[in-house]
Amino acid sequence: MTSKLILLRHGESEWNSKNLFTGWVDVDLNEKGVGEATRGGELLAEQGLLPDVVHTSLLRRAIHTACLSLDRCDRHWIPVRRSWRLNERHYGALQGLNKAEIREKYGEDQFMAWRRSYDVPPPPIDPDGQWSQFHDARYADVPEAERPLSECLKDVVARMLPYWESDIVPDLRAGRTVLVAAHGNSLRALVKHLDEIDDQTISGLNIPTGIPLLYELDDALRPVVEGGRYLDPEAAEAGQKAVANQGRK
Amino acid sequence: MTSKLILLRHGESEWNSKNLFTGWVDVDLNEKGVGEATRGGELLAEQGLLPDVVHTSLLRRAIHTACLSLDRCDRHWIPVRRSWRLNERHYGALQGLNKAEIREKYGEDQFMAWRRSYDVPPPPIDPDGQWSQFHDARYADVPEAERPLSECLKDVVARMLPYWESDIVPDLRAGRTVLVAAHGNSLRALVKHLDEIDDQTISGLNIPTGIPLLYELDDALRPVVEGGRYLDPEAAEAGQKAVANQGRK
Repeated sequence: MTSKLILLRHGESEWNSKNLFTGWVDVDLNEKGVGEATRGGELLAEQGLLPDVVHTSLLRRAIHTACLSLDRCDRHWIPVRRSWRLNERHYGALQGLNKAEIREKYGEDQFMAWRRSYDVPPPPIDPDGQWSQFHDARYADVPEAERPLSECLKDVVARMLPYWESDIVPDLRAGRTVLVAAHGNSLRALVKHLDEIDDQTISGLNIPTGIPLLYELDDALRPVVEGGRYLDPEAAEAGQKAVANQGRK
Repeated sequence: MTSKLILLRHGESEWNSKNLFTGWVDVDLNEKGVGEATRGGELLAEQGLLPDVVHTSLLRRAIHTACLSLDRCDRHWIPVRRSWRLNERHYGALQGLNKAEIREKYGEDQFMAWRRSYDVPPPPIDPDGQWSQFHDARYADVPEAERPLSECLKDVVARMLPYWESDIVPDLRAGRTVLVAAHGNSLRALVKHLDEIDDQTISGLNIPTGIPLLYELDDALRPVVEGGRYLDPEAAEAGQKAVANQGRK
């Protein structure tokens, strides 16, 4: 018997369209993002992939995406689980800054290292600064030592996997169709684990917004088809190219 | 130490405004209802009453109300619990029918008995009929014998209280501020229990839509102030009169 895992990256946010590094800053979807989330739910309904449970991050753009897509496929009533471990990568001191400006100021190599290297985090954020979430009530239960001030993808893998094991895997083992509504980098971390992608190759992998990505998993929770299957493959291909070009003018 | 319990009846729904008996039919909020839910969240924010956890029914209008109000007071990220035990009263064979027509057809006494008596349920719905939810996937875990085909308020009290004891009380005991986003009759059932209202008096109690009702509860979980406190008392009074007049042309 296979288990069904559906990954959904939130639709475009107010800061995606402004080309700002967002990270843990809690911006909402923009109008396009609302449409993408709704379309994501439509794809689930059309293909009869109805989640039994949803896991989200603690960030509004993922939560809103989950609400909209589940409402659209008439699964608004399913159980909801949330965790900071599904949050977007913390972008450290880059949060709130313009991607194109950072690229110009620091050069292509440093820009791409911060964006895409597996183990180079951006400089840490000032915990008391404007775009810091260090004192946000929603992270009060996270020990201070675990509350990130900046993260590389390796850090995201390390803090995401415990939640995968403790909360998502049991739902899959129980035969539930699981929706994970999250972010570019927390989903890349999960895909890296599922497809056993090495630390170099993962840097070239982009996940488009708003298009459900289905993984059917075998008894060992390995993907039956490597890389899974996007419910709208054409839109996914176009979306992946758009993500790769972020930060270019 | 007192615990804080906030009750929120969903805003106006597509069928409230059409004057239809809704019950378990899963209609959404209308535009006015969306505004009411958002205003409910604004009241929570203004008065610093920030929920730590939310409990909802399995019906879209309550779920949507919870999403909108929590988003407005920046608590969209809190844990969510849902149960069919918080659903609106099942209106049996009356679901989908016009309140004014039923009142005209059966007369004021029968109409008021079905709407307001404590222990007279409407005729049961045909489980296979158009407006039945008997086979809805969301109730698959509810044993068939417990899945209602019609309910009076007494029935709602009987199926709601176990959830109060098993799921809501532990949250209050843990010191959490609890939001319950639910329905006219599931909230009346809860208020009846909290304020120890007798079976006759409860028939005159109306709960207005979209206005948070705060109960501070003592160590024995009895209300510090009988009847609690609406966060907008003037709007609540106007709303209660409007509810009492439903079914009149």
